[in-house]
Amino acid sequence: MNAPTGTPEPHEPPHEPPPGLRGVVVTTTGLGDVRGEEGFFHYRQYSAVDLARTRTVEDVWFLLHRGHLPSAAELTAFRAEVAPLRVLPPVLADVLPALAAAGGPPLAGLRTALSLLGAAEGARPVLDLTPQQRAADALRVCALVPTVLAALHRTRVGLAPVAPREDLDAAANWLWMLTGAQAPPAHVRALRRYLVATVDHGFNASTFTARVVASTGADVVAAVVAALGAFSGPLHGGAPDRALAALEEIGHPDRAAAWVHGQLAAGRRVMGFGHAVYRTADPRSVLLRETALELGGELGERAVAVEERVVAALAEAKPGRALHANVEYYAGVVMATCGVPPELFTPTFATSRVVGWCAHVLEQAGDPRIVRPSARYTGPPAPAPVP
Amino acid sequence: MNAPTGTPEPHEPPHEPPPGLRGVVVTTTGLGDVRGEEGFFHYRQYSAVDLARTRTVEDVWFLLHRGHLPSAAELTAFRAEVAPLRVLPPVLADVLPALAAAGGPPLAGLRTALSLLGAAEGARPVLDLTPQQRAADALRVCALVPTVLAALHRTRVGLAPVAPREDLDAAANWLWMLTGAQAPPAHVRALRRYLVATVDHGFNASTFTARVVASTGADVVAAVVAALGAFSGPLHGGAPDRALAALEEIGHPDRAAAWVHGQLAAGRRVMGFGHAVYRTADPRSVLLRETALELGGELGERAVAVEERVVAALAEAKPGRALHANVEYYAGVVMATCGVPPELFTPTFATSRVVGWCAHVLEQAGDPRIVRPSARYTGPPAPAPVP
Repeated sequence: MNAPTGTPEPHEPPHEPPPGLRGVVVTTTGLGDVRGEEGFFHYRQYSAVDLARTRTVEDVWFLLHRGHLPSAAELTAFRAEVAPLRVLPPVLADVLPALAAAGGPPLAGLRTALSLLGAAEGARPVLDLTPQQRAADALRVCALVPTVLAALHRTRVGLAPVAPREDLDAAANWLWMLTGAQAPPAHVRALRRYLVATVDHGFNASTFTARVVASTGADVVAAVVAALGAFSGPLHGGAPDRALAALEEIGHPDRAAAWVHGQLAAGRRVMGFGHAVYRTADPRSVLLRETALELGGELGERAVAVEERVVAALAEAKPGRALHANVEYYAGVVMATCGVPPELFTPTFATSRVVGWCAHVLEQAGDPRIVRPSARYTGPPAPAPVP
Repeated sequence: MNAPTGTPEPHEPPHEPPPGLRGVVVTTTGLGDVRGEEGFFHYRQYSAVDLARTRTVEDVWFLLHRGHLPSAAELTAFRAEVAPLRVLPPVLADVLPALAAAGGPPLAGLRTALSLLGAAEGARPVLDLTPQQRAADALRVCALVPTVLAALHRTRVGLAPVAPREDLDAAANWLWMLTGAQAPPAHVRALRRYLVATVDHGFNASTFTARVVASTGADVVAAVVAALGAFSGPLHGGAPDRALAALEEIGHPDRAAAWVHGQLAAGRRVMGFGHAVYRTADPRSVLLRETALELGGELGERAVAVEERVVAALAEAKPGRALHANVEYYAGVVMATCGVPPELFTPTFATSRVVGWCAHVLEQAGDPRIVRPSARYTGPPAPAPVP
């Protein structure tokens, strides 16, 4: 509830924004932007795609959480700060077998684990913390998410968790913790590009959820747990494995057009194509197509051939829509080629996106104004007498 | 991600809404409205305060989830439908001791329990469900929340959980499951009023969070878990125990004015007073003041005397603001008089509000348009060359 220290404005005359709040500016941010018309997005003042080509997750994590790209010395210090935070705490190690046995998708297991950790460690409301304390809480959650996901996955398939290594960056550590083997440099490089390119992307539903929760003054864990719920929705984070499944269903590129027409005729979605904001090619998809081809192999080449046919078929079926491959399409190809199992595609996405969520939580926490919009009532006139 | 079956609109020119989206209409709803200027709120077409005087939680639950107030026969059938859903499932009974041992606030324990249940029972995305299936999922979550909270509480204090009773309504069951004793009718009546009056209240932060998550097509549990995170924020659901603590800190009404001035001088919030939407007295506070006085006892009378002094002191210190007691202030008095321990004030609120969250999830799920607003970038111009 709002307290007297906030200034109640006069009730504004309500106006109706477009469905899904598309194009509605809900706040200001210094973290970055998505320019849908230009096919361009940036983290702070830097092109995200350029960062993905040249930097690690840790560079961008530092950039978003601390405001500038780290110097070599700052990066070394940051990696040393993060390393011990990656280690699975005993309270989670103890409960992992029960969480793995409960079943459900890996993101639900992560959500339960983080929720429990927040309770066990007495997560404190951001409202009651200094900026330094909030940043420490955010750092810990971001560091732990990959470890928890990898340990849950291995426990589920009957393998012992693999501890993170201090000498590996986030991308290399992720593949290491999943497999217990050092990944080929080409795989690490490809995955690093994917992770850096997916750290943040405007006010998507999960990021917005994290900010709304943070606006109540709740703790960082509460905001991330909520964001994971939004991220689990099939219209949001849940598509990369479906996009790859579609690619497998299509098989040969010659079958792509018929498959698209079949999907549309059945009223089904064409996963991996189209985006809420981009009116052009998704710049992440462009980067990941290049990355998939660099990785080599039959899957990447087939994906490019299928993409061309699907885009053409969609342009024919939905003229004027300009539907392109989105980040999900090549994400699945890159991850599959790097040996990530399909059920971990969306969790892999979560290991980078949590860095963005937490950057938004830290920014929102600096403005403790609870988000509380309105809606236009469209039911029968009120009040009717209560029978 | 948006798929070709959704219609991409042209990118609207962004406009800047007031901070916290106050007064900004984000969607339409048939569930009710809060008329801040009039000090009035309604569930569908009925005054919520009138419903609180005459109806049970189950009546209003039926009203919000099924569209009309139940007939006597419908209510009987609905109660019979809900009764078995209140029973704690074995997967949660097994894990409760571990959740209780983990510590943290009860809402965090509830959040972990629901998250685990969703995983264990294979909660399905609302996008993939029929309206009937979604309604069944929502019914189950609403029925279970009080049981889980009461069982967690009792486990924590070393008592065995008390099973719900089929012959008791939500209000009576809550007190029964907390204490294992049948509560005096006056307590049940008072608590019922509180619960009915707090089922729903416009697009507050937790309700909005639930809707944003539902807009991604995620499952009902994911939306409720997210809403619990927002609800745990000290600016939102976390105030009733703080408001009662303030009342106890003030002690005698004669000390109220000095206490208010001390709080304001120290830059602290005056918990229990002021509201984001109401420019008048909070109608829930008016109802609960009356309820507190009917319950009798020293606490209610002292609360009324302190309220008058605090309102007067606030009017003097913040002229033109018209700050009134909000729902939190008398909620604490009513719950304390009914024997609810302060750490369960906000959880008690959650047992009714979950019915509202789920009604919003069901409404939102009927419009699978992902919520994805924008923000205005205010950082240095992008792109700068990546160093």
